[in-house]
Amino acid sequence: MAQLRIALAQVNPTVGDLDGNADLIVEWTRRAAEAGAHLVAFPEMMLTGYPVEDLALRASFVEASQRALERVARRLAGEGLGDLPVVTGYLDRRTVGLVRPGQPAGSPLDGAAWLHGGEVLVRSAKHHLPNYGVFDEYRIFVRGDRLPVVRVHGVDVATVICEDLWQDGGPVGVTGAAGAGLLLAINASPYERNKDDARLDLCAERAREAGCALAYVNMVGGQDELVFDGDSVIVAADGTLLARGPQFTEHLLVADLALPSADPSVRPGRTPVDARDGTTITVDRHELSARPLPAYAVEPQTVAPPLDDHAEVYAALVLGTRDYVRKNGFRSVILGLSGGIDSALVATIASDAIGPQNVHAVLLPSRYSSEGSVTDAEDLVKRQGISSRIVPIGGMVEAFEAELDLHGLAEENLQARIRANVWMALSNEHGHLVLTGGNKSELATGYSTLYGDSAGGFGPIKDLTKTMVWELARWRDTQAGDGGPPFLHPFAQEPIPEAIILKEPSAELRPGQLDRDSLPDYAVLDPLLVDYVERDMGRDALVAAGHEPALVDRVIRLVDLAEYKRRQYPPGPKITPKNFGRDRRLPITSRWRERGPSAR
Amino acid sequence: MAQLRIALAQVNPTVGDLDGNADLIVEWTRRAAEAGAHLVAFPEMMLTGYPVEDLALRASFVEASQRALERVARRLAGEGLGDLPVVTGYLDRRTVGLVRPGQPAGSPLDGAAWLHGGEVLVRSAKHHLPNYGVFDEYRIFVRGDRLPVVRVHGVDVATVICEDLWQDGGPVGVTGAAGAGLLLAINASPYERNKDDARLDLCAERAREAGCALAYVNMVGGQDELVFDGDSVIVAADGTLLARGPQFTEHLLVADLALPSADPSVRPGRTPVDARDGTTITVDRHELSARPLPAYAVEPQTVAPPLDDHAEVYAALVLGTRDYVRKNGFRSVILGLSGGIDSALVATIASDAIGPQNVHAVLLPSRYSSEGSVTDAEDLVKRQGISSRIVPIGGMVEAFEAELDLHGLAEENLQARIRANVWMALSNEHGHLVLTGGNKSELATGYSTLYGDSAGGFGPIKDLTKTMVWELARWRDTQAGDGGPPFLHPFAQEPIPEAIILKEPSAELRPGQLDRDSLPDYAVLDPLLVDYVERDMGRDALVAAGHEPALVDRVIRLVDLAEYKRRQYPPGPKITPKNFGRDRRLPITSRWRERGPSAR
Repeated sequence: MAQLRIALAQVNPTVGDLDGNADLIVEWTRRAAEAGAHLVAFPEMMLTGYPVEDLALRASFVEASQRALERVARRLAGEGLGDLPVVTGYLDRRTVGLVRPGQPAGSPLDGAAWLHGGEVLVRSAKHHLPNYGVFDEYRIFVRGDRLPVVRVHGVDVATVICEDLWQDGGPVGVTGAAGAGLLLAINASPYERNKDDARLDLCAERAREAGCALAYVNMVGGQDELVFDGDSVIVAADGTLLARGPQFTEHLLVADLALPSADPSVRPGRTPVDARDGTTITVDRHELSARPLPAYAVEPQTVAPPLDDHAEVYAALVLGTRDYVRKNGFRSVILGLSGGIDSALVATIASDAIGPQNVHAVLLPSRYSSEGSVTDAEDLVKRQGISSRIVPIGGMVEAFEAELDLHGLAEENLQARIRANVWMALSNEHGHLVLTGGNKSELATGYSTLYGDSAGGFGPIKDLTKTMVWELARWRDTQAGDGGPPFLHPFAQEPIPEAIILKEPSAELRPGQLDRDSLPDYAVLDPLLVDYVERDMGRDALVAAGHEPALVDRVIRLVDLAEYKRRQYPPGPKITPKNFGRDRRLPITSRWRERGPSAR
Repeated sequence: MAQLRIALAQVNPTVGDLDGNADLIVEWTRRAAEAGAHLVAFPEMMLTGYPVEDLALRASFVEASQRALERVARRLAGEGLGDLPVVTGYLDRRTVGLVRPGQPAGSPLDGAAWLHGGEVLVRSAKHHLPNYGVFDEYRIFVRGDRLPVVRVHGVDVATVICEDLWQDGGPVGVTGAAGAGLLLAINASPYERNKDDARLDLCAERAREAGCALAYVNMVGGQDELVFDGDSVIVAADGTLLARGPQFTEHLLVADLALPSADPSVRPGRTPVDARDGTTITVDRHELSARPLPAYAVEPQTVAPPLDDHAEVYAALVLGTRDYVRKNGFRSVILGLSGGIDSALVATIASDAIGPQNVHAVLLPSRYSSEGSVTDAEDLVKRQGISSRIVPIGGMVEAFEAELDLHGLAEENLQARIRANVWMALSNEHGHLVLTGGNKSELATGYSTLYGDSAGGFGPIKDLTKTMVWELARWRDTQAGDGGPPFLHPFAQEPIPEAIILKEPSAELRPGQLDRDSLPDYAVLDPLLVDYVERDMGRDALVAAGHEPALVDRVIRLVDLAEYKRRQYPPGPKITPKNFGRDRRLPITSRWRERGPSAR
């Protein structure tokens, strides 16, 4: 056996910020060197950030990534870090092989590189491209066909990328035959509820399959609509968990591993191998240091305990909100505070994410607002120390009604849109990002006004059912005071007044209005929404799963109508590449800018 | 040689409307029978409409399509049309072979079927899946691996689907070796400017490659963000154009073809063939009628002349607008009429699309509106006979300003958002669809207000540069009176007042405001936008193409900023399948509804 100290840098890059991401690589490589690591690994697409969407199809962006990779290799050596091997993700392109019609322009690759001694030692690219759920990688990447195996202090280390672990065959299938002593997987794997166990199980299974230990480094941070949760892991060849990083925070996971020594008779070179998925993978062997290290004393392993379900979801919301604000170049947010549970939870998440001093609430009472709405909202403002102002909308409503004769929903929607006008005007005047407070239950059923309460840049609770909104509000109140998790602001008392949690939900757009006049009880609605929207179950399957048939029919009607209405009214026309077609798919918060040839 | 009269039904299905689309199949099959056709072909995904997006991943929808196919086969026979072979597109699923991780749920297929004698004779599916531009088919389909060859009156007819023509290898590569006498391609190919010639060239090339005549039937109609233009063609084995359908209108293209007789020694059965793209295609031979028809007198061929460029683009806008309104279940539209060229052209397109009696204009003058704005708008209203009302916004602006102290852009945006509130309120009150008037030049450069002038369900001119807006307005005015193309309303005089075409562009949101204070001249801006947005050229490439460097840098900044701003503010939160992720991708105007087991 040979010893190796590996460092997994679960860090938070920003899409398009090539210079800033390169700075992160240098900074965390230095930390790894200071920790005595013999190898440091960064996430998938570290240098460009992830997801890059259609930016991968722009030649100038691919070339900028290629140049940035060479530059960061030189810079590491220049700063005395050239002896420590670095594995990092970046964007590359394929230059050999046929360009086929229908393949992504420029043949972009989701690349991995080993950097050493100021140079790029070996390059490879993701073989299995995910193209489901949030992934559309057949659109922007072509597949790689190489498994790098690099000998480091007498250990053969193979590297693969994210989806390569999730599908059979390909480079992981070849790893065992290649006799690797360690399989290193670099990832940008988004958070889903309860996905962490699936990842650990997968790593254990692939380690057993490859017959070697597996180190899995994941990205952390919010990027556009995704949140990456870190949670990097290292498992032994028999699948045993050896080390685990924390969730939702940057971390350098350092672990001492005892790994099989490489067979000295196996020499550098390229060998094609049948990858058992209809393709051929070339094993590409390099040697940095042939001899095992002299024995050294190992440090204890870290196994960070996973967060419980409420803490995990709340931490994801806080990180997603903070990074959306920050990566979009904002420092402060504004939101309408109605006195209801949804806007109360959004304000609290915002306070936790960017500090209460950067949260601006606006109270917009109308003739239908209850007395309690304003006093409860003011209680929350005081508990959290956020800033607030009151803007009564009565005069504005009357000015519209002087010109228009409106009834029913048209009148209700008008109030919601006037409120949105106010917070958008204050956003434009003062530069705050608008947060919007819709939850998944009301958005799914269409209980919301387009260009009204749904208007805003980011909706922190848009993926929470109303049931979950209540649960998280209650959970957050239990965490008040010092000694709570580090991702929470240490409020002295419960940040959400109990009156807000206990009150019956109402949109307050007409006298005595209650959610239950229009919607089924959330206790039966929410499980049905999960099955219909998240699990994509059809009508018969929903009934077979035990949902009441009349309710199923009613909710399907509501959801389908809301969905088609939402699509009838897109956010306003988008510019499209062609004269007719869909909009360009570019990342939301990218920092990439086209620059002249003088740029670095 | 053998004779065959083929009918290509370029018709307009609606996504999700299985019953309505089946009705179209029966109706147009009857027309084909009445025209004496021996074979009738419908577009790709005829039975479900196209594009179905993620609906393909819902089991209940796939099963409904399968049942609808069997039902329409029986219905054709029941109505006395069972002897006429029908080729149609539909949605199916693969039931054999491995389900691999990462493959679309339920293995959906973009299918083609031959119907005859009340039954489904043979099924196949698209082999090459497009996954670029507006297409994401790796996400929703798995590939087919069969080439049906059906003997009809002694002619072997092979069928393929759309993208199968555009890529090398696969079923088209096998057609020649299979000795087909006619290659029939069914398509849902969206309109792009100047694409029609590419299609004809492609058909000619593939006909020569396969060594047989090629019949290409395309869908027609607007569906969500796409417009299908028809323009079906038939070419001879040497690539000569034999027949061509009109653009942008439903049509039955009937042609008498003289085709090679099939080799009687080649019998029904299945033969696997190397498809020269790394896959194996099974040639699946069937026989409906072995003997050539007795000689009959042929009808003259139709070759519809293509529209010129302005007429073609305008026709696409009219059809796209009409079908967006109609397929979304609306009968009327409302729009703000400012007296400027953009809203004037939108009103005119709407009048042409759904008739002036269904177009409702609202004039929203403010303190900054010029005298001419109102009188020019009223002149247009009178020329076209649309209905209109005036809603001055001064009182509403004052009501906001009484509560808020706004300056500069915040004040300008407020006016635009108040106008949007008015038309949304009238839309909610009266049930009109809101049309919005932004053009591509101003949307691309961010010269537009979110939730303001950009608010609305459909933007007919969102993909036109300002230069093209002027060109089309001038062109439309030349077509006044009777005798114009059939897709135009026969206005007695020019529908757009010349004063509107000639005036200098202004947003009229502050005193004396002109577009040229904020934007480069459209004559230099628009070509640069085309190169940057449509051709995705980087900074250096734009300069090399002759654009002035300082202008390139300025416009890139404007476009990138507008693009990121548009993405910062999505239309309001969307519901997502998972807790974090992108929204569900469902078609906008689908008529599909989950129904109970009692539904047909």
